[in-house]
Amino acid sequence: MDAAEFRKRGKEMVDYIADYLEKIDKRQVFPDVEPGYLRPLIPDCAPQDPESFEDVFKDIEKIIMPGVTHWHSPYFFAYFPAASSFPALLADMLCGGIGCVGFSWAASPACTELETVMLDWLGKMINLPEEFLAGKHSQGGGVIQGSASEATLISLLAARTKTIRRVQSEKPELTEADIMGRLVAYASDQAHSSVERAALIGGVKIKNVCSDDTFSVCGSALQKVLDEDKASGLIPFFFCATLGTTPCCSFDKLLELGPICNKENIWMHIDAAYAGSAFICPEFRHLLNGVEFADSFNFNPHKWLLVNFDCSAMWVKKRSDLTGAFKLEPLYLQHHHQESGLVTDYRHWQIPLGRRFRSLKLWFVLRMYGVTGLQEHIRKHVRLSHQFEHLVLQDERFETCAEVVLGLVCFRLKGSNELNKALLKSITEAKKIHLVPCHLREKFVLRFAICSRTVESTHIKFAWQHISQLATDLLKTWEQKHHQQ
Amino acid sequence: MDAAEFRKRGKEMVDYIADYLEKIDKRQVFPDVEPGYLRPLIPDCAPQDPESFEDVFKDIEKIIMPGVTHWHSPYFFAYFPAASSFPALLADMLCGGIGCVGFSWAASPACTELETVMLDWLGKMINLPEEFLAGKHSQGGGVIQGSASEATLISLLAARTKTIRRVQSEKPELTEADIMGRLVAYASDQAHSSVERAALIGGVKIKNVCSDDTFSVCGSALQKVLDEDKASGLIPFFFCATLGTTPCCSFDKLLELGPICNKENIWMHIDAAYAGSAFICPEFRHLLNGVEFADSFNFNPHKWLLVNFDCSAMWVKKRSDLTGAFKLEPLYLQHHHQESGLVTDYRHWQIPLGRRFRSLKLWFVLRMYGVTGLQEHIRKHVRLSHQFEHLVLQDERFETCAEVVLGLVCFRLKGSNELNKALLKSITEAKKIHLVPCHLREKFVLRFAICSRTVESTHIKFAWQHISQLATDLLKTWEQKHHQQ
Repeated sequence: MDAAEFRKRGKEMVDYIADYLEKIDKRQVFPDVEPGYLRPLIPDCAPQDPESFEDVFKDIEKIIMPGVTHWHSPYFFAYFPAASSFPALLADMLCGGIGCVGFSWAASPACTELETVMLDWLGKMINLPEEFLAGKHSQGGGVIQGSASEATLISLLAARTKTIRRVQSEKPELTEADIMGRLVAYASDQAHSSVERAALIGGVKIKNVCSDDTFSVCGSALQKVLDEDKASGLIPFFFCATLGTTPCCSFDKLLELGPICNKENIWMHIDAAYAGSAFICPEFRHLLNGVEFADSFNFNPHKWLLVNFDCSAMWVKKRSDLTGAFKLEPLYLQHHHQESGLVTDYRHWQIPLGRRFRSLKLWFVLRMYGVTGLQEHIRKHVRLSHQFEHLVLQDERFETCAEVVLGLVCFRLKGSNELNKALLKSITEAKKIHLVPCHLREKFVLRFAICSRTVESTHIKFAWQHISQLATDLLKTWEQKHHQQ
Repeated sequence: MDAAEFRKRGKEMVDYIADYLEKIDKRQVFPDVEPGYLRPLIPDCAPQDPESFEDVFKDIEKIIMPGVTHWHSPYFFAYFPAASSFPALLADMLCGGIGCVGFSWAASPACTELETVMLDWLGKMINLPEEFLAGKHSQGGGVIQGSASEATLISLLAARTKTIRRVQSEKPELTEADIMGRLVAYASDQAHSSVERAALIGGVKIKNVCSDDTFSVCGSALQKVLDEDKASGLIPFFFCATLGTTPCCSFDKLLELGPICNKENIWMHIDAAYAGSAFICPEFRHLLNGVEFADSFNFNPHKWLLVNFDCSAMWVKKRSDLTGAFKLEPLYLQHHHQESGLVTDYRHWQIPLGRRFRSLKLWFVLRMYGVTGLQEHIRKHVRLSHQFEHLVLQDERFETCAEVVLGLVCFRLKGSNELNKALLKSITEAKKIHLVPCHLREKFVLRFAICSRTVESTHIKFAWQHISQLATDLLKTWEQKHHQQ
């Protein structure tokens, strides 16, 4: 395919994408296929000779679409949102066209410099303390990671290196292996599984800190476990606070936890993967109070800020903590400017070496929506979640299970976990809407997350009527079964 | 921006990208900007109100392009190639449009299943042993990682877990920390810095194995260091072999190394990030002989197989080795089908949780080029590197520094490292072509990598005439300086 054909086919693809997104509500949100559906539909091996674009293109509807879960359908209420917007799609096209790999400043200066400035823009939008911004003479700054998992891992590894060095300077008799064996990381019992995974990767222990009855970690719970662990010879070194937990969007109490971490020489990382986008609205910014105590902070514009995956924004107060943990400089990656202290080589800030020009997506979205446009998007989602909450609370068969702060409603039928599993099963099988469950303590709970950019009040009403009807049908047969038993 | 405007702007962007790539040879390959150039060109913070697409669009040429290193220019000979092709760009547009996040089978079945089958296609193209393919009843299979660094890290971590479990079952008196403290990984002294980094992340020791005078690791070199380390109580657990090293594209001797690793219970990972694409040509497949001894194998279609970044293909013989190392199953990520054993949840195979629909790029590229089209691409690059080698060897002022096997030529002026640094400096400052250096033992060497999809014989001739002229100019002043001293 040459440039001339790309002009033609690219325009056809633009129309296909526009059609797909305009009419996505007409597609069944969750696919009908069974595991293994795809393999029999395509050849066993790659073709020897080129096929035409037409041949490939017609297979999109025939082979791919029947197996797609439509994350941008207004009937998709599962997980958390995956952001998508037209400005971000345009920027990603440009990113692909330029096709540079920005592992160092010299590998493409624009790629590095736009990222630094965009992270400053974004940091200012959520009123992040100035220490986290790159500015002109700061020790801090931001970087785009691929996912919150990587941000958590990178901060845990930086904390590990920093702590090992500190302990070794205090107690030179200890080997690195001795110290590693005593290090402990902490996170809420509500924290995302990626925190436990980061500790597994880093080869250190991790312990859950009990959350309170609002599913938040408070200072006394952390202090208690720290005191116990220190008394038994362990070395606490890392705490991952969560703002907006995945099960129910609860918030750890930063203002209590931060001072403890600072006093105890513990790196505090804040994972606000989903909730962070909301902090661009002044009325939600208070949820971030206490960030001034943190060493690193992360949220995902690719979740709720209309920037397509992947774009996970991470800031640190001292960038030398990250680069100090991993800096390796083979000659083919060195360049003339790097000694100047003015340049950033982002490969020292992340796990992979290569990186796409992802800041273009932020630049396009922030400019073409403006802060007010993005605030409207957040506020619409929060309004819709309260609408759904209100509908749940009006029906006395149901209960909500956690405070609705942002765009997530946790709810269930009053009754057994089995009953609620049966309700979820009937929702999943009907495939009119899509949602996923969670556990809150011993309770099996349904999560209703406002996801799509184009979801409106009518979709919420439809979803509720549908759930309510399925509940009615279920309760009828459930009671019959119960009577028979 | 609504769908109607996206149709218009998307088409403009398609034309912009086509224009950019068609006329990229007219742009200076390496930018003129100094560190910090971008910040003064744009506002201090994001706009409150939306800006128009036109405003953003005109800033691409004004602000971004002056700072771009043009990786797809036919005058770009630095690092290794970054793949780019029109079919891959089209597929990436579709990937963005669908915008699903495929961390589990249920999160988008097509995303997972196409990936599994595409990795089978690709594995068959390089004649990978059947154990590495997913097929229907195999224990192995492939996955798309973001980068070779992640593939190396993931395999090192899987090996770490496997070894810790084995040693603990043999010697229950050892703690995990004891074992961790004794584990040693190995790689060639020519291996990529990401291998050392993987060991740093995993918290284990790593040692260089000396390469021979062809910059390859042979069996005896590995056996020697293993014997020494075992004698001193260490536990060798991981060897990363490299096919196509970054400095000079040398090849470790798999047929000698593999049996040693198998005998010693050492996980052998093969990093063929750049060279792997060449194995689709029968005449280069012999370089992969010995892969049958490996536990995991990786190469980057995003380097040399016309699939835009990121697409790093990794295969393992036993997928349970990967998933066994990290499997964590919170309820919101569980789904009905996962107990069936038929489905793959790729989040257990990688560091991040989220993932894009990257297999679309492979599908489009493999079908629209066909195996023969891709073979032609590889063969053209190899032909051009031999053309350059020939030009170097005809000029007796120059020498080549390693065998030219694929698309990389390592060369230098006969003479001091200072002389060659001066030559590189004059090349870099002239900005007619772009290349980067490396060290081979004590020698400072220039790397000439065939990179662009559109590079032709004329560009090679131009590059050589340019280098040759700069060398002539340099040698004149160099000798004068030498005389004066």
